[in-house]
Amino acid sequence: MTYKASILTLYPQMFPGSLGHSLAGRALQRDNWSLEVVQIRDFATDKHRTVDDTPAGGGAGMVLRADVLGRALDHASPKGDKRPRLLMSPRGKPLTQKRVRDLAAADGIVLVCGRFEGVDQRVIEGRDLEEVSIGDYILSGGEVAASVVLDAIIRLLPGVMGNVASGDFESFENGLLEHPHYTRPAEWEGRSIPEILTSGDHAKVAKWQREQAEELTRKRRPDLIEDDG
Amino acid sequence: MTYKASILTLYPQMFPGSLGHSLAGRALQRDNWSLEVVQIRDFATDKHRTVDDTPAGGGAGMVLRADVLGRALDHASPKGDKRPRLLMSPRGKPLTQKRVRDLAAADGIVLVCGRFEGVDQRVIEGRDLEEVSIGDYILSGGEVAASVVLDAIIRLLPGVMGNVASGDFESFENGLLEHPHYTRPAEWEGRSIPEILTSGDHAKVAKWQREQAEELTRKRRPDLIEDDG
Repeated sequence: MTYKASILTLYPQMFPGSLGHSLAGRALQRDNWSLEVVQIRDFATDKHRTVDDTPAGGGAGMVLRADVLGRALDHASPKGDKRPRLLMSPRGKPLTQKRVRDLAAADGIVLVCGRFEGVDQRVIEGRDLEEVSIGDYILSGGEVAASVVLDAIIRLLPGVMGNVASGDFESFENGLLEHPHYTRPAEWEGRSIPEILTSGDHAKVAKWQREQAEELTRKRRPDLIEDDG
Repeated sequence: MTYKASILTLYPQMFPGSLGHSLAGRALQRDNWSLEVVQIRDFATDKHRTVDDTPAGGGAGMVLRADVLGRALDHASPKGDKRPRLLMSPRGKPLTQKRVRDLAAADGIVLVCGRFEGVDQRVIEGRDLEEVSIGDYILSGGEVAASVVLDAIIRLLPGVMGNVASGDFESFENGLLEHPHYTRPAEWEGRSIPEILTSGDHAKVAKWQREQAEELTRKRRPDLIEDDG
């Protein structure tokens, strides 16, 4: 079954972009997912094709109009479409791997790329847009963020990675950062692979990797470690 | 002065990608920033141009070799290059807007796009790579993450946005999510703009916006609200 992604944007030329290459690109060619890109501006009705206007109450920047975006959404995701509708926005709920898994289990997704000035609140409410943030920083627009969401989803779709994937993100989902990795050559610039890794003692290796992961997580991401208190 | 970005990747065709359009694309044309894309594979030395190998100690996936990436880094960022070197990785320190500002104030940046299997720890240490994560989810590779980092930086470079920018991210940097936005039309599908926003009373508008921002932040991102004791 093809996972159906619809992206609403003012910059359709940005897609598929990086999603047209590598893993996501091959999956697109194999119909593991499909991509519809909708130009929001096509749903403006005045001769200047205006999509935004100054914010009510004053302030800097421009606001994307509810009526224009509403029409674009009704075209891309008419009533009865059960796909989740996400608005990429720094105001949103932070994206997590758990949420990515839920999204990958749906039939598809509708992604609205906001520009940073904002989107009229009424269309967010009137069209059930869920605001999602990929991180605590500001982007020039939601397009790069939408690419991130899709990239994370696509690798989890059936048939895209096969078994290769399974082992890897488990280590993330157990709430720890990954332990350090090493590979050949055995020595590089005077630096050796830790002896334990070449000992052949699988139990010791697993214990070492676990300890390294815990230490790194404590040091770098104490917020990930649950309070056992 | 041109901000100099170097990207090391196994998928050079992914760049400039979305960064070639819109704000970042115009800034690239105006030489506000420059882009060098380095194919890591060009620094392999065997006839198969191998860049990775199986992990020491066993396990799934492949690990990017220290010697190959080391040579690619020495080419793109030789000794004396003061630009920060980032390795995009879910193990990294989370990117924040404060960090983006610091990065934008440098002469440029060196971005290494890891593939999720991992990079030999010795080259991370031997070449002072700072591991940075754009969020708590797994991507197919660091390329989309590098685009996010650059997009966030580029909009802050001198001459890219001008004064338009200044007001906007302040509302993010005060530790609150942005209040809701509204614009014309005054009524849409029976939904009106909140009266206070059209009252012309700037003090009341500011108070309402502040309250809305606080309420949204409490509800959606309580972690952003500092403990006032």
